[in-house]
Amino acid sequence: MCNLAAKEAIVNKIEHIGIAVKDLEASNSLFEKLFGQPHYKTESVASEGVTTSFFQVGPNKIELLEASNEDSPIAKFLEKKGEGIHHIAFAVEDIEAEITRLKEEGFTLIHEKPKKGADNKLVAFLHPKSSNGVLVELCQEIAG
Amino acid sequence: MCNLAAKEAIVNKIEHIGIAVKDLEASNSLFEKLFGQPHYKTESVASEGVTTSFFQVGPNKIELLEASNEDSPIAKFLEKKGEGIHHIAFAVEDIEAEITRLKEEGFTLIHEKPKKGADNKLVAFLHPKSSNGVLVELCQEIAG
Repeated sequence: MCNLAAKEAIVNKIEHIGIAVKDLEASNSLFEKLFGQPHYKTESVASEGVTTSFFQVGPNKIELLEASNEDSPIAKFLEKKGEGIHHIAFAVEDIEAEITRLKEEGFTLIHEKPKKGADNKLVAFLHPKSSNGVLVELCQEIAG
Repeated sequence: MCNLAAKEAIVNKIEHIGIAVKDLEASNSLFEKLFGQPHYKTESVASEGVTTSFFQVGPNKIELLEASNEDSPIAKFLEKKGEGIHHIAFAVEDIEAEITRLKEEGFTLIHEKPKKGADNKLVAFLHPKSSNGVLVELCQEIAG
């Protein structure tokens, strides 16, 4: 009766791909053409200095990220690398358990405690140095 | 009786994320720890100069890409950018129709005709210059 299969999986799916963009409005228009459908929401995360917009792609999402101030991690990423893929987010059932497991496996966590991210999620990031240059986000839907 | 919803969608899901790695064996071990499960296959694509391995993550896949020769696009990517996310592949129902549609929408195609890629797929890439710095792959399962 309960969702055992999902609970047993450590990582359920790619929840979203984060893409750093310079101009959210222009990029919304570009990705609308790519997917043949508009973004379904915009959300600001003041603590991260980002404005985000989301596209649904079947079971997955694309999150466009525009810096909302100069100190934003996205402003720094754009300066260093230009526009492009910023991170992969994986959906997990129990983010605290995953943080503990991945630390034991030798991964370096940027956040050792989950924090509130966009889209009603608890999130934590792995440092790309310990994961093949890939910025990995773990995210868990906040219940209720 | 038929899968109308899927047929109507232009892009069904993120089929996979391609990640460029220097040492496939070491990276297989790393991603096995991340996902808590081993890669399920390895495949060489001589025409692209790559050896790939695949991990299943729910409805999505992660494709690790190691260069098999110095002229490989992956060798050039690693030299320029280091290890990290290389491309996003979206599953489409009709790749030829998508190529036509996206050209009309102003995207630049690296391949104007689909070609045989890894994992029994017809593939075509959009140039990252026309898609916000993101190398986008379209892929369609080869029937039969």
